This record gives sequence, C-alpha cells and structure tokens, in this order.
Amino acid sequence: MTTAGQAPGQAQANLIAIPRDWAYDFLLFTHRNPKPCPVLDVLDAGETVSALKQDADVRTHAPRYRIWENGELKAEPENATDYWRDDLVTFLIGCSFTFETALTNAGVPLRHVDQGKNVSMYVTDIQCRPAGRLHGPMVVSMRWIPESLVDMAHKVTALMPSVHGAPVGAGDPRMLGIEDIDAPDFGDAVEHEPGDVPVFWACGVTPQAVLMKSRPPFAITHAPGQMFVTDMPDFAYRVG
Amino acid sequence: MTTAGQAPGQAQANLIAIPRDWAYDFLLFTHRNPKPCPVLDVLDAGETVSALKQDADVRTHAPRYRIWENGELKAEPENATDYWRDDLVTFLIGCSFTFETALTNAGVPLRHVDQGKNVSMYVTDIQCRPAGRLHGPMVVSMRWIPESLVDMAHKVTALMPSVHGAPVGAGDPRMLGIEDIDAPDFGDAVEHEPGDVPVFWACGVTPQAVLMKSRPPFAITHAPGQMFVTDMPDFAYRVG
Repeated sequence: MTTAGQAPGQAQANLIAIPRDWAYDFLLFTHRNPKPCPVLDVLDAGETVSALKQDADVRTHAPRYRIWENGELKAEPENATDYWRDDLVTFLIGCSFTFETALTNAGVPLRHVDQGKNVSMYVTDIQCRPAGRLHGPMVVSMRWIPESLVDMAHKVTALMPSVHGAPVGAGDPRMLGIEDIDAPDFGDAVEHEPGDVPVFWACGVTPQAVLMKSRPPFAITHAPGQMFVTDMPDFAYRVG
Repeated sequence: MTTAGQAPGQAQANLIAIPRDWAYDFLLFTHRNPKPCPVLDVLDAGETVSALKQDADVRTHAPRYRIWENGELKAEPENATDYWRDDLVTFLIGCSFTFETALTNAGVPLRHVDQGKNVSMYVTDIQCRPAGRLHGPMVVSMRWIPESLVDMAHKVTALMPSVHGAPVGAGDPRMLGIEDIDAPDFGDAVEHEPGDVPVFWACGVTPQAVLMKSRPPFAITHAPGQMFVTDMPDFAYRVG
C-alpha cells in the first residue's frame, strides 16, 4: 500500500540496505548526487533501528520491500527479516512525500492523493555522477500542478533540500527523456486537470535504478511509494 | 594568510585528506554532523583536482596546510605536495566565509574583516555524533553582530545550509562551553562594538578537533581560516 497522503506532517524516507563492502561507494554516490539522494540517516552495519523511528525495525516498518541480487529484483516481501544479513548498512533517504503537506498548506493540489494513487515516477536520461562502482540514471517523481501554482510549488519545495528540494524540471517531459507521461516506470499514472503542468522532482527511487545498472551482489530496498514513515516532523527538513 | 574577506562572491572550503581506510568513517561522520561538516566535494583516492576548482591542485591551492600524525600537528607547510600519499581521499567542506558576502549585502557588518583578522573559532562542549572510529567536539566560528541584526544574520545564513546554515547559538558563550571569548582556540580574537552580540556558527574546523581526539594515523588539512577558495559562486549554495 502506498504511503502517499499517509501520516501528514511526518517525514517519509526511501530505504536501501547494501553490504558493508559497497557502503562507501553508496555514501559517496549520495554526496555526489544530493538532489535524488539526500541522506537522512545511515545505520551501522547490522543495525536495524534508526534514530528517526526508534520503535520500529527497518526490516518490517515499510509496507513492502524489494530484494535485489546482482541488480535483479528477486522478491517483494512485506517483511524483509528473512533476507537480512548482518553486513548490511541501511540508508534512509529523503522522500518527496515529506513536502506534500507543505504543498497542501500552500494551496497546491495533489492529484495523486486526491485519486488515491501512488505518485508517478520515471527513469530519466539524466546520468547521475558516478561513485566507485555505482552509476545509473536519475529517477524523478512527477506531480500535475496548475500552471498558476508552479512557482509556488517551486518556492515551497526549494526550502526543503533534504527531501529533494526544488523541481529539476517542469513542462515538456522529453527534456528529461521521458517518452510517455502516461506510462510511469514506477507508481501509478495520474489523471490531470486542464491547465495542469507536469512538474518533476529528483526521486529517492534513483538508488534502485542504480542497483539495476551497477549490479551489486545484494541489496534490500523499500518498494517505490511504500515508504519508511519516520517520527520526524516534516518541518525539521525545512530550512529558513 | 587568512582568506577571510578574500574572493568575495566565491565559495570557500575547508579541506581534509585522509587515508582511504578511514574515508568511510569520515564520510559517515559528515553525514551524521551536517551542520559542522557539509560536504561540497569528495575526490577519489589519490585524485588532486576538485570539480569545484579545476585549474588548481588541492595540495597547493590553500595558503597553508596542516600535517597530522596520530592526531598530532606535525607541520604547517604552504605546500602539501611533499606529504602527499596516493591513498588519500580529499574532502572539501563548506566554509562560513562563503556566506559573508550575503551578510554584507544584507547590511550586517563583519568585524573581523574590517579589522583585517581571521574569524574567531572555539572548541565547544557539544559532542558530535560519532561515526566508526571518529568522534570529537564541534568547533564553532563566532562573529560579533549588532543585536538588531542578529535576526537578519540568522535569516540570511539559514538559507545556506551547505556552508553551515543558521547559527547554532547566540549570546552567552558558556552555553557552548566557551570560557573566554577573547581567547579563541583557532583564528584571532576580534574587537567588538557596544551592543554587539556573539553569534556562533558550526565550523568546518571541526574535523581537525576530531583528528586530535580520534587520532587516525595520518591526515592533511588546510590551516584554519586559510581556505581552499573555489570557483563556485557563493549563491550556488543558497537555497530558495
């Protein structure tokens, strides 16, 4: 079940757990690609509780997980405990669902939430800056936004860089290499209203696109849109 | 020679080069302590040119370096080339000098620049969040600011989280464990005007305090206040 529109006011996070041997490359990747990969927390190898949600286990708290072997999706369990390894380092990465309460408060409608859907996500032709063995394209989330509110959406989200910040583009999807806006690579296609413009934000599913390209031997992630909901207030990630 | 007040409009950076074996701990430390250690660039092991200053060598471009062995300061050369090792990973970390042009533009006077001095820096009793083998206290920089402009200074710098962002405190230095405001641990003591309040920002010299406490076998850093001046415009590090 998608967590879009759930737990308003609480920060949500993308999750990736990767073997210790790959953790430096991944941490460096996040530094070199802060728009798609703003890190909120890094656990020690084998650790299963994050400071951002102290009463939960990172292996069970997200609604659904993905198990990856050599860059291929092997399973999508609701509970990742059976797949856990003590050499896994878990990263929590900012999620754009975290700025949705701020958008709502600013009068920006959320079409996917109104329609009870997951947000639309697309693999772009923007290549991330590589780090060690890790490389791959940027993934973006897209929200249909009334043209008159695009500036407002930019202004609101720019102040929240830890949850992807300002959009990376708005308007023609082809500028990001997206051929068909109605066929997202992850999440749901979302209906739009007349006058809506597609607005694109860097997305924390990017590490999953990187896994597919870079093929580390093993990883656990959340399923796109089925996030790790933290106890952190979303305003903790607002600057200024 | 301090770079305070030099190269207005260009971002300045703290520098630390640490053996590859320690790089993961350090990168994790920066993630867990983003106020003192906002990372601007990470070079690959052995690499000596940063994307932020492509026509310079990281071993020679800062006015002065510090050579560390087992947490002890061994030398302060103007050129670090003789000390270079190919397993060193260089990190560039945001510097508060980068927001000084924005402060000036907002009408906030810079006492240290007016007096031709380095900024005052202090080791506090705030312990950073440890990462692996690395631990130690936070270092802060201090600027005397007219009481009526403290809010403005907060507002201006909060929008620049990559160069330390909003102050970590203002007013009584003892709340940070600073006993004598006139005896900084790094940099110069700075004269103040009547009505000035000391305002404290997390400082990129923190890694040097961490080196002293955690005692990795080897490291090269810049000398405090003698920064690596980049070609990046300072507004690149402003959000919103």
